[in-house]
Amino acid sequence: MKPRAALPPTAFTLPSKYYTDPAVHERELELFFRRMWVCVGRFDELPDRGSFIMRHVAGDSLFIVRTSAPGEPAAVNAFHNLCRHRGTQLCRDERGRFQGSIQCEYHAWTYDLNGTLIGAPHMEGSAHFRKEDFPLLRAGASVWDGFIHVCVTDTGTTLEQQLADLPRKFGPWQMGELRRGDGITYDIAANWKLIIQNFSECLHCPNLHPALNKLSHYLSGENEPLHPTYMGGRMDLNEGVETMSMDGSCPRSFLPGLSAVERRGVYYYALFPNLLISAHPDYVMAHTLWPLGPGRTRLVCEWHFHPDELARPDFTANAVREFWDMTNRQDWHVCELAQAGISSRAYRPGPYSNREDLLYAFDRFIVETLGD
Amino acid sequence: MKPRAALPPTAFTLPSKYYTDPAVHERELELFFRRMWVCVGRFDELPDRGSFIMRHVAGDSLFIVRTSAPGEPAAVNAFHNLCRHRGTQLCRDERGRFQGSIQCEYHAWTYDLNGTLIGAPHMEGSAHFRKEDFPLLRAGASVWDGFIHVCVTDTGTTLEQQLADLPRKFGPWQMGELRRGDGITYDIAANWKLIIQNFSECLHCPNLHPALNKLSHYLSGENEPLHPTYMGGRMDLNEGVETMSMDGSCPRSFLPGLSAVERRGVYYYALFPNLLISAHPDYVMAHTLWPLGPGRTRLVCEWHFHPDELARPDFTANAVREFWDMTNRQDWHVCELAQAGISSRAYRPGPYSNREDLLYAFDRFIVETLGD
Amino acid sequence: MKPRAALPPTAFTLPSKYYTDPAVHERELELFFRRMWVCVGRFDELPDRGSFIMRHVAGDSLFIVRTSAPGEPAAVNAFHNLCRHRGTQLCRDERGRFQGSIQCEYHAWTYDLNGTLIGAPHMEGSAHFRKEDFPLLRAGASVWDGFIHVCVTDTGTTLEQQLADLPRKFGPWQMGELRRGDGITYDIAANWKLIIQNFSECLHCPNLHPALNKLSHYLSGENEPLHPTYMGGRMDLNEGVETMSMDGSCPRSFLPGLSAVERRGVYYYALFPNLLISAHPDYVMAHTLWPLGPGRTRLVCEWHFHPDELARPDFTANAVREFWDMTNRQDWHVCELAQAGISSRAYRPGPYSNREDLLYAFDRFIVETLGD
Repeated sequence: MKPRAALPPTAFTLPSKYYTDPAVHERELELFFRRMWVCVGRFDELPDRGSFIMRHVAGDSLFIVRTSAPGEPAAVNAFHNLCRHRGTQLCRDERGRFQGSIQCEYHAWTYDLNGTLIGAPHMEGSAHFRKEDFPLLRAGASVWDGFIHVCVTDTGTTLEQQLADLPRKFGPWQMGELRRGDGITYDIAANWKLIIQNFSECLHCPNLHPALNKLSHYLSGENEPLHPTYMGGRMDLNEGVETMSMDGSCPRSFLPGLSAVERRGVYYYALFPNLLISAHPDYVMAHTLWPLGPGRTRLVCEWHFHPDELARPDFTANAVREFWDMTNRQDWHVCELAQAGISSRAYRPGPYSNREDLLYAFDRFIVETLGD
Repeated sequence: MKPRAALPPTAFTLPSKYYTDPAVHERELELFFRRMWVCVGRFDELPDRGSFIMRHVAGDSLFIVRTSAPGEPAAVNAFHNLCRHRGTQLCRDERGRFQGSIQCEYHAWTYDLNGTLIGAPHMEGSAHFRKEDFPLLRAGASVWDGFIHVCVTDTGTTLEQQLADLPRKFGPWQMGELRRGDGITYDIAANWKLIIQNFSECLHCPNLHPALNKLSHYLSGENEPLHPTYMGGRMDLNEGVETMSMDGSCPRSFLPGLSAVERRGVYYYALFPNLLISAHPDYVMAHTLWPLGPGRTRLVCEWHFHPDELARPDFTANAVREFWDMTNRQDWHVCELAQAGISSRAYRPGPYSNREDLLYAFDRFIVETLGD
Repeated sequence: MKPRAALPPTAFTLPSKYYTDPAVHERELELFFRRMWVCVGRFDELPDRGSFIMRHVAGDSLFIVRTSAPGEPAAVNAFHNLCRHRGTQLCRDERGRFQGSIQCEYHAWTYDLNGTLIGAPHMEGSAHFRKEDFPLLRAGASVWDGFIHVCVTDTGTTLEQQLADLPRKFGPWQMGELRRGDGITYDIAANWKLIIQNFSECLHCPNLHPALNKLSHYLSGENEPLHPTYMGGRMDLNEGVETMSMDGSCPRSFLPGLSAVERRGVYYYALFPNLLISAHPDYVMAHTLWPLGPGRTRLVCEWHFHPDELARPDFTANAVREFWDMTNRQDWHVCELAQAGISSRAYRPGPYSNREDLLYAFDRFIVETLGD
């Protein structure tokens, strides 16, 4: 354990408006959730050409449709969920498959999988009407190592630029090969940033997570300094512990690309704005955050395994699911207590300790991005 | 089928604010629901002198009380549901009968059926108090062919003036004689205008209503041009079809006053702001619309039959109810999809076809009445 | 029954904004519920040193903790429910007991029962940090005759000053000795002031409370003039009636300190802003009011008895509970009707009778305190 550099005496938590004010929240949605690439799911949710998933991103209803056939490189389009005729939503299912084209139920306007309008009944009498003027409204869509990302507002920044050196860092885990083994969705009465802050320090671990603290000591971690679009670090597994699970044992092979060092730790990275990756020796846990309001966040937690392990007849994610579900619930509980306290009229900012340096840096990033 | 005149290239649907903005909605309530006559029910809901129904009209709680004895001409009063003493609501029941007078539960102030204050305990000590200064607050109330209408804000326009030539048009159906046979109430997650627009075009019929399209072809209709307070037209029944019901057969006599032509069609009229009449050869369907917010409308659908038919021991409205309930639900489904899509940040107005001419005219009427 | 002095011709009920406008309500919370002492419960809810109750006062979450050991004089502290580190709520339980200190679940900051910070892990590396700068945030707390009061905003006024001569008036009932025998919590769809007004006149009794009116005639009451912080008066028990209960009989001894006159009446006092005391010959009923919005109030009704009576094996509060629950529900019903009517667009103020003089005075007090 190394001592941390001293934070300035002004290193206090943020004023309450950053967690409670609908106007600040709306600006955060605009700047972080519409102008950045957000993770909306995994490519293995789309088994075939025409398969789609529906997502609500910062108030927009979008569907993401797979355009590549099985065996071809991952390719997806993302469209706003509305017909260009009278605005009717095209789809209400959370997932499904379009059979070659996308047809509106109301008046049968029809689009191909690239969003081009190919049928518009009764418009032939309108001399000025041209089908090419009314394609589906498109959002950016791209896939990195199996993680599908969309970007509602085109700012010229590509997903690759936003990810910076993360693809290289996460290369050894070969996450594009992994497949979903299990998942849980949580509805948390807390601001999305409180969840990222909770994810980014382990000072609370001895008090709140005694089981976790037995597997990985809370002071073993070392953080990287804050990067423009992510932050994170590593914690060591205690001696005799093989992975994070109920008893610390690992009934699976380690992921094939990992070094000896990578097999002895867990790598926790928060990719702004909404993807939290916890890379273990034998699986990857990914949280995606979906703000539903200043004080409410939906969180999808999924565990991704190597397909060889998933194919084994005795495969089970139970020990992993049980351990992390218990730990998650402890975390959401204190996030909700923090949201409630910060929402109080009496709340005033409090002092960060030097080991909460990433949180202070994250707060600075938020404030500066909002232009405050 | 006649070709329709070409709409201008600017004939697009309305911006989203007309369907989502609470301020626009409030102005619509004021201009269309408080300053126009709105239909609140049927006179046959009031069996006797003193019978009342309670209604919420654009945020006002009103009760409508019958003042005429059985056998006398229809006569009703409409009052705001509050006592002039301390503002207490006089009634919470949806329907019932006042026994000669209306008494407040709180301090027993008492009014006659014309709203005159006739009892005010303990006010005798107040020298300046005069009962005649505190009658119930009244709204306009009038009955046309069995349809009770109220007008919250007196603009000087009578119900007769608002109805224009409709009483003459609907004369043959003798709707005042008809009695309610059945009804269904729907709660629809869509703006009231989307429901009127859906009612006013049948382009969506082949795709959405295959059963209806077998009874009455979607291109058989002919519309009248928009009138200041209503719009509508006729659709023909297909050969061999007698009325709109599950199998197209009609086990009832046709209404006695209809011509041969009237027996071969259905007349669909939208009476602004909230009454949709569908006059069939043997019954009349009436929808009343009750906006509950920009994106939510309660709709009461009722079927009215000739009393001779209702009196027959084998009378049943089932085939009519089943057909229209199925068709209604298909319509409310797409109205809700339209509301959801139009509410999206991504929505932008789309082009009307020439066969959506009534909708475009209706939109112009809305925009002009709002003074936009 | 004495005639009342005539009210001026301008003595009308208040405009609707005082019952419906969120901005007025917020000002009322500030001026009446944060700057005055409010009653939050009874000292006998705190059996031991460290026992606490949690309360929400006008949007603030507070806990009140007992600091005196059994046998010592009543002593309590009130603290805002949040940690000075990152704002986390310290407690979610409605009641419980702290074992000597108060520890935050998140990062284990620890306070003693006086709110002093005594533990702050990992802050030792911050040279500028001093524990004494971060005590729990305190509200005023004081106990009168068993009634715990808190004051969120210190205005310099003590509880004793606010109570004025009430401790002397209520001296004979020795309320500090009484213990809770039973209680009911109500959720009422009405503004808090309508409940105080309802409590402060009995003109509605013959019409609304026929059972009560048999025990205590509605015109038997005599009010004191309005005092700056309370109002109230007395009503006589009818001949043969011993106390307010289902049959008017009293199976208990009268409270030991009462005079013959006090044993023949009930004393109804509204202590602004939120405590309504009804002192009977053998028990005290206390309502506390908790505004949840302009149109919604939670009301806690409790009956307090002499401990000698509570200790009797055949003690029961049933006849008292049954009588007052019936009467309470009649009152809340008309309060809700009044709220609904006053919330109507059509509402306009109505005239008070001379026997509603306290209500008119109360309205003046409200308007003047708000500075309108």
